[in-house]
Amino acid sequence: MTRIGIIGASGFTGAELLRLLAAHPELEVAFATGDTQAGTPIAALYPSLAAAYGDVRFAAWDPSLLDGVDLVFLGLPHGASQGIVPSLVDAGVRIVDLAADFRLTDPDAYPRWYGEAHTAPELLGQFAYGLPELFRDQIVGADKVAVPGCYPTATTLALAPFTRAGLVETSGIVVDAASGVSGAGRPPKPNTTFCTVDEDFTAYGLLDHRHTAEMDQVLGATVLFTPHLAPMNRGILATCYARPTGSLTTDDALDVLRSHYADEPFVVVTDAAPSTKATLGSNTAHLTARVDERTGWLVVLSAIDNLVKGASGQAVQCANIITGRDEALGLPIVALYP
Amino acid sequence: MTRIGIIGASGFTGAELLRLLAAHPELEVAFATGDTQAGTPIAALYPSLAAAYGDVRFAAWDPSLLDGVDLVFLGLPHGASQGIVPSLVDAGVRIVDLAADFRLTDPDAYPRWYGEAHTAPELLGQFAYGLPELFRDQIVGADKVAVPGCYPTATTLALAPFTRAGLVETSGIVVDAASGVSGAGRPPKPNTTFCTVDEDFTAYGLLDHRHTAEMDQVLGATVLFTPHLAPMNRGILATCYARPTGSLTTDDALDVLRSHYADEPFVVVTDAAPSTKATLGSNTAHLTARVDERTGWLVVLSAIDNLVKGASGQAVQCANIITGRDEALGLPIVALYP
Amino acid sequence: MTRIGIIGASGFTGAELLRLLAAHPELEVAFATGDTQAGTPIAALYPSLAAAYGDVRFAAWDPSLLDGVDLVFLGLPHGASQGIVPSLVDAGVRIVDLAADFRLTDPDAYPRWYGEAHTAPELLGQFAYGLPELFRDQIVGADKVAVPGCYPTATTLALAPFTRAGLVETSGIVVDAASGVSGAGRPPKPNTTFCTVDEDFTAYGLLDHRHTAEMDQVLGATVLFTPHLAPMNRGILATCYARPTGSLTTDDALDVLRSHYADEPFVVVTDAAPSTKATLGSNTAHLTARVDERTGWLVVLSAIDNLVKGASGQAVQCANIITGRDEALGLPIVALYP
Amino acid sequence: MTRIGIIGASGFTGAELLRLLAAHPELEVAFATGDTQAGTPIAALYPSLAAAYGDVRFAAWDPSLLDGVDLVFLGLPHGASQGIVPSLVDAGVRIVDLAADFRLTDPDAYPRWYGEAHTAPELLGQFAYGLPELFRDQIVGADKVAVPGCYPTATTLALAPFTRAGLVETSGIVVDAASGVSGAGRPPKPNTTFCTVDEDFTAYGLLDHRHTAEMDQVLGATVLFTPHLAPMNRGILATCYARPTGSLTTDDALDVLRSHYADEPFVVVTDAAPSTKATLGSNTAHLTARVDERTGWLVVLSAIDNLVKGASGQAVQCANIITGRDEALGLPIVALYP
Repeated sequence: MTRIGIIGASGFTGAELLRLLAAHPELEVAFATGDTQAGTPIAALYPSLAAAYGDVRFAAWDPSLLDGVDLVFLGLPHGASQGIVPSLVDAGVRIVDLAADFRLTDPDAYPRWYGEAHTAPELLGQFAYGLPELFRDQIVGADKVAVPGCYPTATTLALAPFTRAGLVETSGIVVDAASGVSGAGRPPKPNTTFCTVDEDFTAYGLLDHRHTAEMDQVLGATVLFTPHLAPMNRGILATCYARPTGSLTTDDALDVLRSHYADEPFVVVTDAAPSTKATLGSNTAHLTARVDERTGWLVVLSAIDNLVKGASGQAVQCANIITGRDEALGLPIVALYP
Repeated sequence: MTRIGIIGASGFTGAELLRLLAAHPELEVAFATGDTQAGTPIAALYPSLAAAYGDVRFAAWDPSLLDGVDLVFLGLPHGASQGIVPSLVDAGVRIVDLAADFRLTDPDAYPRWYGEAHTAPELLGQFAYGLPELFRDQIVGADKVAVPGCYPTATTLALAPFTRAGLVETSGIVVDAASGVSGAGRPPKPNTTFCTVDEDFTAYGLLDHRHTAEMDQVLGATVLFTPHLAPMNRGILATCYARPTGSLTTDDALDVLRSHYADEPFVVVTDAAPSTKATLGSNTAHLTARVDERTGWLVVLSAIDNLVKGASGQAVQCANIITGRDEALGLPIVALYP
Repeated sequence: MTRIGIIGASGFTGAELLRLLAAHPELEVAFATGDTQAGTPIAALYPSLAAAYGDVRFAAWDPSLLDGVDLVFLGLPHGASQGIVPSLVDAGVRIVDLAADFRLTDPDAYPRWYGEAHTAPELLGQFAYGLPELFRDQIVGADKVAVPGCYPTATTLALAPFTRAGLVETSGIVVDAASGVSGAGRPPKPNTTFCTVDEDFTAYGLLDHRHTAEMDQVLGATVLFTPHLAPMNRGILATCYARPTGSLTTDDALDVLRSHYADEPFVVVTDAAPSTKATLGSNTAHLTARVDERTGWLVVLSAIDNLVKGASGQAVQCANIITGRDEALGLPIVALYP
Repeated sequence: MTRIGIIGASGFTGAELLRLLAAHPELEVAFATGDTQAGTPIAALYPSLAAAYGDVRFAAWDPSLLDGVDLVFLGLPHGASQGIVPSLVDAGVRIVDLAADFRLTDPDAYPRWYGEAHTAPELLGQFAYGLPELFRDQIVGADKVAVPGCYPTATTLALAPFTRAGLVETSGIVVDAASGVSGAGRPPKPNTTFCTVDEDFTAYGLLDHRHTAEMDQVLGATVLFTPHLAPMNRGILATCYARPTGSLTTDDALDVLRSHYADEPFVVVTDAAPSTKATLGSNTAHLTARVDERTGWLVVLSAIDNLVKGASGQAVQCANIITGRDEALGLPIVALYP
């Protein structure tokens, strides 16, 4: 049993960690902070967690909470992790950060895409990029992990097998993706009220969504990324377009995916078009591919649950790895359907 | 480890059994039949299950499947269970039936509500009514369990603490409930297409919904039950109205619920109005109560996931009990949110 | 052509007035105020209205706006109408108020249900109750109309034909209703974000919803009212339970409805259970009734679009009447489906 | 007043015609056929239409229905129009066909994309392509119109201003679009049940969707088109990617759209990303554009209601034109929101 803490547990990724850890046999929640919610019972903010967390309350952050704790998950807003990470490093606790702060390795990239200076740039190179299917070597033995963004997880699982093998051009890539609304977080906003979103489909973040930087970094490419908002709670579907460098058929493309992910417990390669609903609540990604003879494009489609494989499930997967456990321990691989 | 079989696994309750059993540490799926789907890979019909069931296919029912199997779940349509149960009884296998066939103990009730004669009336009295929070004594030691309907589960958890204590009149009870669409099952029908149901709220089964019979039986009452269809996948909320026999306040009513369910792992009594979403994917029921001084009515509200506590989760709970296990083993108590 | 103004046009009822008036042949929008949105183009807040309102902006309220205006609609929050109505009365303009301020005729009722004193109680008796199907006599010739709440519209259309004829007891009535989320208004709130509401069904306002007072007033009864929130944009379904005073069959009850509404353009009495979706975007109410021989209850069901027949459509219907027009002029009677 | 008929009125495009025509001041419905529904009251299949169509029933097709009728809309399944059109031509009635049968002018294209020979190829060249904003010259004075598909309407409104001006390359174009479920039609199918679609986002028709042929024809280009299914009733959002042939900025691209559609009542060019909900129930298209300096792509986004501007509304718009009326007569330009 490993005792873990969650700093920033009151948002959706924090709540999802609490959900997953309630069923995890070997990771035990020692504390869950939520500064704006300190003192609130977890069950008051998330009745869904009542049966497991009863009277437990969100704590205010205090360094003494780390006593006896081996690993902390950070579910803080982007920009807040870099303020607290240096002291956590000093405290010698393992860190799995769900924010964007330590994902980009190029020191110039963070200020360019996030619009402000990084306050702990010396730590940028010390975090493993927490996408085990693509960066397991980095993660094994690491004590600091930056969990990827939801869109980059879906997108790079789809395209990295092709970019790494030199099978597609790294310019001209188009990623057109749709996400459920939980990606926007818990606080009420005008653009995420039910009456705004329900029965609507729209694009957002045109040309400048920050997750583009992660895709470029992982793929070694220049990606045009257009996210859309779909009227559903969870799920990301990424439809990725790239130009083959040489001859490539649909069968070839499916083989590339199947051989690349042959031993992965959390990746399913399908003949049919993947659906987000087939991943709901699970840590599994579903992928397929096509090559269009008419136009020459390779199309790769990828579906995940943005809060599980796209965030908290992947974080637990990384925590399993860095604490020396079976990577899949305690994680759901099947989805809620319907 | 107990090897179990699922007869009638291709419908929603069968698929939900497969989902829950994929995470159960001690119940192992030996076979899953689906006569109209025999030969189809489980993952083709339910991509959500692909990561756990890989190439496993739905089987055609054959008695030899029972070899080495200790317990079978029946996920057959109402009316089909009674055809196969006698042979299963002869085979000496434990039975957890999710259909309505063996829920009603009065031999006259089944034909009255289901419109046809029962073909195995001699077995009616041999099934325990599989609602552990109210009938645990019957279930412990039983080898045949009839799992209650989804609406009766929600409703009787709400009202039985009051009817059993003689705190409410047994006539004049009104149950007004709403269900997600999965309650209607998997086959496409005109009244459950997306374009019919989405953005719609409507009533159905006016005056004659079959689940009324179970409510009457469990509560010893005469209930007017009005079900509604809500545009969501899962969830039942039952709003139950009864007239107190004597003085009763809201605090009294909440105390009745809290003391009745004090030791139950799957029941949460809340001050706030329960929401179906707080139960999504979990085996937990959420309850609250109010007494209206103006009008004299007691109102008890109850939320469950119709496919889990209202069907397959409760079935696994019963299977845990009759195989001598911890009742909560392998069952989710927290919900997917959002 | 009559020039009208909308005071408080930036909320959902105001926007719905703008939608309906864009298609009205004889009512012309002279101004639309929205104090917190003054200066904002209507199309920026409501892109849905862009093609009709182009560059028109929400105005700040100023009495000079009334020049040349014959009638004003008030779409203000409850409590705000009573502050401005006296000056509008002095200005001699016709008033159609969508707020609750002037719906209750008993001077004690407003403070009891709304928790604060009424500042213009002397005007309470001067407003017609704007439900033409039940109070047309009051409305014809009136110059001040208080448009009913959405729930009271649905409920009293269902029950008034029975209470007025003495066919049901006026105590013990239960109204169990569900509403789409637009009833909660435009401003983002924690309980109306997409991630809270989607896939959820819950009750709210237990025992003390303010619309109860209107139902009691119109029906001359004491009603227990339980509203629920359904995951859809629009629509109210009210399921109403009352006890017949004498012998009453389902056929009788349907006849009561059919004869009562025989000449009404905006009421459809159906054999089948009404669905909210059949009213979407229209000013039409759908009704049916049943009498349950087993339990003795009369059940009347009523579906409306809460923003049209439950608010802005009914307001235009009243405006048509008090300006001497065909009551149905410019109003949609068919619904958007699917 | 012009008397019109609808052949094939029981599907969604037929029902939408009935909805729109109920509010049209000068087009009167003389008959509405629905062979599989002949004899069924319109209001029984579509309760949403009850208030306007009362006891009117779907007719069985019979040529005598054409007596006194000036124009027929065809809402038949693809492939069925070509069987009846020759006789309608002989009868001298104007034709507005909503099927795909007469949209493609190249005689080879129909069999290639629809997989069967065309039975009336001699008539292919006689139909105007019913997209007034792009082909008004053809439509004025025509007596036969083929109304475009929903996806081609959204896509070509977005891209034609650029392809016609030679501003983008005609190869390499990617169209990634999402549609509401009504695009799949009324009959229940496994892939359009509520429990399949709700909370899901998926792609379909990979590489070979038939609407590709129309896009290619209108744009003079080779398009890779990937449609997706979004969990909503209505709406199409097309996100279109093309490579500029020369220097082009976002401002340039917006100017191209604004000048091209300056006088169009049914096109709104916005700075913000368009949303399908802003078009719900209306005949209006919303467009915007961006040019990405990083990657060189032009992105044009287009939102419509697939059943109105993408089908029945556009059909009425064409009917208005060919009967010499104001093109916008009786058509909604503002949308239902929320």
